[in-house]
Amino acid sequence: MNNKMYDLGNNRSIIRELFEFSKLQKEKLGSDNVFDFSIGNPSVPPHKKVTEILTSLLTNGDPCYIHGYTSAPGDIEVRENIAKDLNQRFKTSYNYNNIYMTCGAAASLCIVFKALTEDSSNEIIAIAPYFTEYKVFVETQGAKFKVVPANLDTFDINFVELEKMITCNTKGIIINSPNNPSGVIYNAESIKKLSMILKAKEAEYNHPIYIICDEPYREIAYDGIIVPHIPNYYNNTILCYSYSKSLSLPGERIGYVLVPNSATDHEIIYKACLGAGRGLGYVCAPSLFQYLIKEAVGLTSNISLYKENRDLIYTGLTTLGYECIYPDGAFYLFFKSPSGDSYEFMERAKKHNVIVVPSDPFGVKGYLRLAYCVKKDTIINSLPAFAKIIKEYE
Amino acid sequence: MNNKMYDLGNNRSIIRELFEFSKLQKEKLGSDNVFDFSIGNPSVPPHKKVTEILTSLLTNGDPCYIHGYTSAPGDIEVRENIAKDLNQRFKTSYNYNNIYMTCGAAASLCIVFKALTEDSSNEIIAIAPYFTEYKVFVETQGAKFKVVPANLDTFDINFVELEKMITCNTKGIIINSPNNPSGVIYNAESIKKLSMILKAKEAEYNHPIYIICDEPYREIAYDGIIVPHIPNYYNNTILCYSYSKSLSLPGERIGYVLVPNSATDHEIIYKACLGAGRGLGYVCAPSLFQYLIKEAVGLTSNISLYKENRDLIYTGLTTLGYECIYPDGAFYLFFKSPSGDSYEFMERAKKHNVIVVPSDPFGVKGYLRLAYCVKKDTIINSLPAFAKIIKEYE
Repeated sequence: MNNKMYDLGNNRSIIRELFEFSKLQKEKLGSDNVFDFSIGNPSVPPHKKVTEILTSLLTNGDPCYIHGYTSAPGDIEVRENIAKDLNQRFKTSYNYNNIYMTCGAAASLCIVFKALTEDSSNEIIAIAPYFTEYKVFVETQGAKFKVVPANLDTFDINFVELEKMITCNTKGIIINSPNNPSGVIYNAESIKKLSMILKAKEAEYNHPIYIICDEPYREIAYDGIIVPHIPNYYNNTILCYSYSKSLSLPGERIGYVLVPNSATDHEIIYKACLGAGRGLGYVCAPSLFQYLIKEAVGLTSNISLYKENRDLIYTGLTTLGYECIYPDGAFYLFFKSPSGDSYEFMERAKKHNVIVVPSDPFGVKGYLRLAYCVKKDTIINSLPAFAKIIKEYE
Repeated sequence: MNNKMYDLGNNRSIIRELFEFSKLQKEKLGSDNVFDFSIGNPSVPPHKKVTEILTSLLTNGDPCYIHGYTSAPGDIEVRENIAKDLNQRFKTSYNYNNIYMTCGAAASLCIVFKALTEDSSNEIIAIAPYFTEYKVFVETQGAKFKVVPANLDTFDINFVELEKMITCNTKGIIINSPNNPSGVIYNAESIKKLSMILKAKEAEYNHPIYIICDEPYREIAYDGIIVPHIPNYYNNTILCYSYSKSLSLPGERIGYVLVPNSATDHEIIYKACLGAGRGLGYVCAPSLFQYLIKEAVGLTSNISLYKENRDLIYTGLTTLGYECIYPDGAFYLFFKSPSGDSYEFMERAKKHNVIVVPSDPFGVKGYLRLAYCVKKDTIINSLPAFAKIIKEYE
């Protein structure tokens, strides 16, 4: 047996663990009495056109076609439409050849890591706080996972530490903005600074260092803040996207990898990604949802509902005395454990039927991640419990 | 860059290659003038209830639920229904804990190979002729791929060679029946014989040797032939299933891994599979199609249409003088190249707009695989072309 795989299966991610715990609690106590902020399962339904398009495909489409294999990189028209939409929004000039349809962001990331990894000396670097599964994905694909410690003042990239951490074995840096778990968006200045550092390191080591940007939250940004399109700042960027969050389809596993022409060896990388997808068993992205995307490209769920939640929970918790990072995007709030111990807070909160995720697996100690992609009432009704919890620390 | 992945992406499977070629030819010549037998894309539409259930889920279901994450092993009720159906049909006593919902058979296989592989000394054995991608899946997951040569008389398992090939490093044997590409079904006698050999080898090497049975064609068997349910014959069986063929949903990527309680260390294997799925980026199987399966379990497409095709093509080609293996199941016909060279035949056939797949990548030289999951007219209209081709050999 592969012991590493057994461990991964036996020790579920803490998020999944808490999600299952809350499911059981809800069965016991009723779902209104459990305040589950554990998982990034979108609470805002998909755009109504999503259901319309799916129903129309089922009603009018040839069932052998809509449920049939597409070519491995995905249906060409789907990829063309995605490219057009991106070109319009980001002034780029992508075409279908840059895009590989995948089973969501996790698949995209595993495929890219597998494509980039030559041997176990290769390093992929993440920036804390980072999505916990990056470590699992990188290590399973055979590379070394390294973490740049968090910048605890701003939760922007810790450039000093990043620069120190890059070696001749560095294959890529994962950038996740809007960030899970902090909700922070790296602004254009940060991306420029990052770009300069990487370019210098590429020159120093004489090989490309790719930014792997994981951006399922790209469209979930508030107050008119623009998420920089990283390929416009740094040539050697590979983009991993998922419709899980923007279209509220997390269970459907649909997304893509984008390899821009500007990236060094872009044709080779693209083919290596295709090969990695093939070798990992990803035959094609789910076909019905590919055809959905063809028509739904550019749509999003009603993001303004997340903004309402963001405002409610941020104001609510800061008023109660919690120290929170102000989230500009995604649907996560990152706040400090009053005791400085995130697990202690998690356990204490569980007793009040409040489910939040300790930050340690995200690479930062002492914080909690709260996923506010929940019903408004869950937030409102949880505040008295949050009040009781913080009082216990007095 | 990972050169192996680049090679996998650059050298597409010959099936995909021919599929793409035929697509282009059809655009040039019209789809009625190209006789494409390259790919196992079901031609029989899904059962009409499939569309009804999907439409009803979209109309009446909570969109956040039907498109939301399920737990990683899959929705419990879906797995319960699958277990019940199997128990009824095969007199087993599975429950949801034995089943892990996956993104189809390719995903299932990669997950199982990854779960079983400790290091590169481990061997997984396939029996020729075998589905070409097994080699890719096994090697990408880090094990050694070995092939038992075909039994050219019957295309049953070549037991003598199999027995010789098993070593102390053998982790598992892939069994694919009904077989792609030969259409042969291994009968109960064969499975018993296989089982005896493996039990003796397990005793000799003092560790389990798993049968990994890949059975997407389980329901596609003709003339009342029963496909033996291998876990009823051999305890250490891990079953990989897909609804791609039985429900005509190949693009949707939905299937499962089944680890029976009878298998040695079954709980450990199950968890190692979960871990492998996690590490390879399979977050959950597509949710809408999980909920479809919950209600569609036990249904199949109209298999009798494949039987009509089987009879038509088998009679047609044998009458013309082709030497064919009689297929009891799946939707593939395996026939000999009149020149003994499969690639030569493939190229010759292409000139007549007949697309068939050379057998060499399936581990047998000199045959062609013809996927007869096509419109009846394609078969009828292709026969004059087949007649011309065989005449060229006279």
